[in-house]
Amino acid sequence: MLINPDRFRQSIEEMARIGATKGGGVHRLTLSDADKQARDLFAKWADDAGLELQIDEMGNMFARRSGREDDAPPAMAGSHLDSVPNGGRFDGSLGVLAALEAVRTLNDKKILTKRPIEIVNWTNEEGPRFPPSMMGSGVFAGAISLEAAYEARDSEGARLLDELERIGYRGDAPCVPKSIGSYLELHIEQGPALVSEGIQVGVVEGIFGLTWLRVTMKGERDHAGPTPMHMRRDAMVGAARTIAAIREIPGKLHPEFVATVGEFSLSPNAINVIPDEVMFSVDFRHSEPELLNKARKLIEEAAQREAAKENLEVEIQEVGGSTPTAFDESVAQAVRSACEESGYSHRSMWSAAGHDARYAADLGPTAMIFVPCVAGKSHSEEEDMDWEDAYRGCDILARALVKMADS
Amino acid sequence: MLINPDRFRQSIEEMARIGATKGGGVHRLTLSDADKQARDLFAKWADDAGLELQIDEMGNMFARRSGREDDAPPAMAGSHLDSVPNGGRFDGSLGVLAALEAVRTLNDKKILTKRPIEIVNWTNEEGPRFPPSMMGSGVFAGAISLEAAYEARDSEGARLLDELERIGYRGDAPCVPKSIGSYLELHIEQGPALVSEGIQVGVVEGIFGLTWLRVTMKGERDHAGPTPMHMRRDAMVGAARTIAAIREIPGKLHPEFVATVGEFSLSPNAINVIPDEVMFSVDFRHSEPELLNKARKLIEEAAQREAAKENLEVEIQEVGGSTPTAFDESVAQAVRSACEESGYSHRSMWSAAGHDARYAADLGPTAMIFVPCVAGKSHSEEEDMDWEDAYRGCDILARALVKMADS
Repeated sequence: MLINPDRFRQSIEEMARIGATKGGGVHRLTLSDADKQARDLFAKWADDAGLELQIDEMGNMFARRSGREDDAPPAMAGSHLDSVPNGGRFDGSLGVLAALEAVRTLNDKKILTKRPIEIVNWTNEEGPRFPPSMMGSGVFAGAISLEAAYEARDSEGARLLDELERIGYRGDAPCVPKSIGSYLELHIEQGPALVSEGIQVGVVEGIFGLTWLRVTMKGERDHAGPTPMHMRRDAMVGAARTIAAIREIPGKLHPEFVATVGEFSLSPNAINVIPDEVMFSVDFRHSEPELLNKARKLIEEAAQREAAKENLEVEIQEVGGSTPTAFDESVAQAVRSACEESGYSHRSMWSAAGHDARYAADLGPTAMIFVPCVAGKSHSEEEDMDWEDAYRGCDILARALVKMADS
Repeated sequence: MLINPDRFRQSIEEMARIGATKGGGVHRLTLSDADKQARDLFAKWADDAGLELQIDEMGNMFARRSGREDDAPPAMAGSHLDSVPNGGRFDGSLGVLAALEAVRTLNDKKILTKRPIEIVNWTNEEGPRFPPSMMGSGVFAGAISLEAAYEARDSEGARLLDELERIGYRGDAPCVPKSIGSYLELHIEQGPALVSEGIQVGVVEGIFGLTWLRVTMKGERDHAGPTPMHMRRDAMVGAARTIAAIREIPGKLHPEFVATVGEFSLSPNAINVIPDEVMFSVDFRHSEPELLNKARKLIEEAAQREAAKENLEVEIQEVGGSTPTAFDESVAQAVRSACEESGYSHRSMWSAAGHDARYAADLGPTAMIFVPCVAGKSHSEEEDMDWEDAYRGCDILARALVKMADS
């Protein structure tokens, strides 16, 4: 391997002690004290590695290593150090610390790349404390306004800007779009494809588009006893049939199409009362815009059809979404070449989860590297991975980063 | 008419001012201050009518008018003065005040019946404050223990016994089963059958049996993006398909069979997470025990089948229920004769909702009288009825009560 696996593992383990949970995960919400400690440790390590640290107005951290052509747009690599509540220790940290290990390796080997290299720790990738997710990269790419981001509030009313200042990470550098030479992000897959297929590396060629809907159905509240079945307007029945129908839609479209009903509420929620109002969410994702459009039409048709059967009013609201993002073939090819050199098995794939790479792709050639995680689990303390997979991911990132920095 | 409609209406309207809500209903929870005021008013009216009031250990109120054979088991009639939260003004009160009007009419006409007549106001028919419902009549019939009833607590921790003492309605008379000559209860239908068929009086020949189940399905929590459809164990999907299947069961059994899913909860209830646990209730009712058994089997089979498809664990728990109760033909016949004498249209029916008459039927010959209510609505401020229907119901109750008291 190009990299130093032991040093990399020590960094991961030391970072994982910040906000460590009893269950073996980390609880490091954006702009919390734990996030500040993680940032401080990263800043110290960057300094130790001779990197120049720049912090922008959103708190995004860029640790820069000079290149032979130091004015050329940088080869970037990174991810995020924040976590979901009681999340895992590899989600995000893996990508930041692998980029750090890559740079330490270049230092060891006294290699000077053509372009400068920048390691980035994006602010608020996760989003549960301050929605929306991928906020730091979103502002950096010009997709989210700095003002809106600053005004985001957590559930206790704390404002993002105040928290950013409180932990001392409101930087001076403008957070505005700039041209980048390339962007690479190593991440655990967060799904079961690689681990179940026994493949070592995923070459990520894009990020699924996603649509979030909320469907509300309104019927009539009645006593569960004396109201004959044929006289009911039961919102629960309309919703259940619609959800069952939605489950059949992905199979009609594509093997990788996914659709999920994750939220559900009903009124009055009493054992002996026919529900008069039900709300449920639909999350559906794929790489093809036309299939996303088709799915939406099929979901809407199913909701209308089932609502009509039960004589319900139905309202469908879009509450979030993003278009599919195709990554850059030259960066994906650099990852593929690195796998070939190292003899690692790999396959092309798209990410069904969002990542900062989605916004980075707006600014320059981008790709991601996925490595397997145990049972495909993430966003929980159960998240885990084999160290060998972590080392392989780090090694591929280092090799591909050097290729991009020398291109 | 035998009765005095204006006097009856004034009583209903005066009673409805106690706990009156802005929306035209009443909010008179069991053993609340409003319940005490309603009881005090009923006690005063009973006294004005020359009745002897007895209060038992459960707070059940019996207002007695002597008969020629004063030791004979009494002809009873009544209902309840408590309400659900923001309930209607006729549900319960109609039956108590119609019985009072019947006795006032006998006083006017100086008619002395053979048996004594007792008007009863049962404690805690509704049950939302202190579950279970029909508690006062349940203790009276020996189906619920006095000790268990006394220990019932509301959502704020107040104990039924303490509240009974606080409002001064813990009586001295033992609340134990005694033989009754007959029991008659006038009530709004709480369903749409009579009003939609244009029939004036329902002769109620029994009360449906009921089963309450809670179904829990457990799958696996996963990210809604990277988990392919075929690798999911989605508790929401299993539940939705089961609920859709339950909706088809009544039609296979009997036109009057009803089944309702009124409660639903899921975990973690997040838009982008596959739910790992879902709980829902099933309420199903009918007059035939064998159809209730068959429905239970079909519901359990549907849950097992749909859980297996999605690789879920399933648990089905019975959380309540009652067997069907057939009323007494001689009392039903007295109601039918009264309708014929008065020229009111009538039809036989069973009640799909529970009533105190269910427990009274354990102690002596019982039947109920239903009158139409607007749109079949109850348990809400929307509950309403035509005064003409109220007068007809009161008149039939008075006529049938005299028949039973003279039998």
